Amino acid sequence: MMSEKIILTADRPTGRLHIGHYVGSLKRRVQLQNSGEFDKVFIMIADAQALTDNADNPEKVRQNILEVALDYLAIGLDPEKSVIFIQSQIPELCELSFYYMNLVTVSRLQRNPTVKAEIKARDFETSIPVGFFTYPISQAADITAFRATTVPVGEDQEPMLEQAKEIVHKFNTIYGETLVEPEILLPDNKACLRLPGIDGNAKMSKSLGNCIYLADEPGDVKKKIMSMFTDPNHIRVEDPGRIEGNTVFTYLDAFALDDHFARYLPEYKNLDELKEHYKRGGLGDVKVKKFLNHILQEELEPIRNRRKEYEKDPAAIYQMLHDGSIKAKRAAEETLSEVKKSMGINYFDDGGIASDK
Amino acid sequence: MMSEKIILTADRPTGRLHIGHYVGSLKRRVQLQNSGEFDKVFIMIADAQALTDNADNPEKVRQNILEVALDYLAIGLDPEKSVIFIQSQIPELCELSFYYMNLVTVSRLQRNPTVKAEIKARDFETSIPVGFFTYPISQAADITAFRATTVPVGEDQEPMLEQAKEIVHKFNTIYGETLVEPEILLPDNKACLRLPGIDGNAKMSKSLGNCIYLADEPGDVKKKIMSMFTDPNHIRVEDPGRIEGNTVFTYLDAFALDDHFARYLPEYKNLDELKEHYKRGGLGDVKVKKFLNHILQEELEPIRNRRKEYEKDPAAIYQMLHDGSIKAKRAAEETLSEVKKSMGINYFDDGGIASDK
Repeated sequence: MMSEKIILTADRPTGRLHIGHYVGSLKRRVQLQNSGEFDKVFIMIADAQALTDNADNPEKVRQNILEVALDYLAIGLDPEKSVIFIQSQIPELCELSFYYMNLVTVSRLQRNPTVKAEIKARDFETSIPVGFFTYPISQAADITAFRATTVPVGEDQEPMLEQAKEIVHKFNTIYGETLVEPEILLPDNKACLRLPGIDGNAKMSKSLGNCIYLADEPGDVKKKIMSMFTDPNHIRVEDPGRIEGNTVFTYLDAFALDDHFARYLPEYKNLDELKEHYKRGGLGDVKVKKFLNHILQEELEPIRNRRKEYEKDPAAIYQMLHDGSIKAKRAAEETLSEVKKSMGINYFDDGGIASDK
Repeated sequence: MMSEKIILTADRPTGRLHIGHYVGSLKRRVQLQNSGEFDKVFIMIADAQALTDNADNPEKVRQNILEVALDYLAIGLDPEKSVIFIQSQIPELCELSFYYMNLVTVSRLQRNPTVKAEIKARDFETSIPVGFFTYPISQAADITAFRATTVPVGEDQEPMLEQAKEIVHKFNTIYGETLVEPEILLPDNKACLRLPGIDGNAKMSKSLGNCIYLADEPGDVKKKIMSMFTDPNHIRVEDPGRIEGNTVFTYLDAFALDDHFARYLPEYKNLDELKEHYKRGGLGDVKVKKFLNHILQEELEPIRNRRKEYEKDPAAIYQMLHDGSIKAKRAAEETLSEVKKSMGINYFDDGGIASDK
């Protein structure tokens, strides 16, 4: 059991998934699922975590569970290979969180750089909900409940993994070897770390309206690409252009293959040649954007088509999530039972309170 | 259902119960149980809460569950009338806590005077376990899970009740009328608020070794009373003595009835006469202590005898706790189901995620 390789990943259902998610984690997740290297893959729709800072809008979270599930299936996550489930349907996660909270100090949470950054990003300052403040502990519960050995996330999530490891270490030290220590699996391609918004903003975000969604129609994708932020000083075609901070080129870094050039822009062999021309001057933004549009349309078309198929039968999606949640619950129950046994609070399993463990 | 009168009370199983508990809450709890005024009485052995600051010693908590249950039965709590149960066996409480954490801010918890005082008493300072820091939220979960209308506790617990009320108010405001607002039931007798230790220390505590336990043998009770702190300036019998801060008289305030004078100290009609003599001078500590010993022996003897009967059959106690926990779980399940329905996270109860609430 200890030697099994198990993945846990999750997304917060606060909006449809966009190509930032796709490039940053989803595409690779499908590869990992299909690699045959993992004994189990758990994919969690983190509704309970989404509620920690959306407590007053559960309907938004509720609606987006279905959207995220559709996006998952559309990109090729496969319920035959991966357990796709909803966090709130696994009450064992709350129980694990509850006991892990005794193993972490308040000041340790306050030092967590990810939490610090997120608090700042949300303008919480003094009114941080406790559920949000403690979410690294909840994440440790998610990870350990499924005995995950491998958590594929970005570098920004490293402090969360550190916190989970500390909890595992502390638990095993006090109560005996019980929990599995997870390892982070970082993205292998720097460009895949984070895709900027189409306006050049460092982060794609629903509220900024700067995302290309996996479910966007072809016309919308094209419109968004044609409006993309490039180099503000690249005014006339003959002007030299900058590549750095030029969103169109950042996207090309993430998506363009030599193959795409052969098909859509045969006058260049590869991205380096295109970049050279742009820097030199004489290459217009429209031409580059049209090329990016070809590539993204090609990438998104099969995803969009599959999504439309799945959209026809929401009851089947619902059933898939239900089945996945039952499977996930079973796994979490097993871990919780081990945890309670190690803590000696399984009073009614072992012949009574007064007896020794 | 909303008009039911329901009590919830709890004790942390970190040691046997002493006469401070008895006078401060247990004696009254039996009266409330037998008053016929309440539709349901829930009595919780708060092992999960005890673990928040005893995470490294679950065995202590485990052993004391049985001790506390024996003390309960010995003083006359009756499983036919009260549901006696173990907190950790009700996972619904963790789930409620988890969602309530989204409704409370970190700074609100930091302002809680009870938490502040407890943190100081435990010398936690910067290393407060998160589980301890957040326990007002966990207590709100305990109270609301059983739809308690009435929580009989001391004045020092008022901030905890305030926190619970705030959570109820916020939850009902956001998600619609769901939870019942609890009311505090303060002790009716000032002397019953808190009994000092036999050494005069404001608090009885196991670690200070200054408690008289409900299960103490008669000889031990006598020995403890004879060593009690009185007035350090009352050296010779003829010296005038002080009543204030004199532990023997504080205990008499809590226990002595006129009736006791008739039986054990007929030269005085009541406590006022005894106090007058002591203040005047000419009354020795030993005489007063012997009187207190008579009273406490009379009070504790039937408790001790009942306890010894119950001690003969730990399996029956265990069964009682198991039955009580099942009953309590059923009540908590009902509330949690209402809570999830109100929050709209009962996805699989109502025909699917995409449907309206």
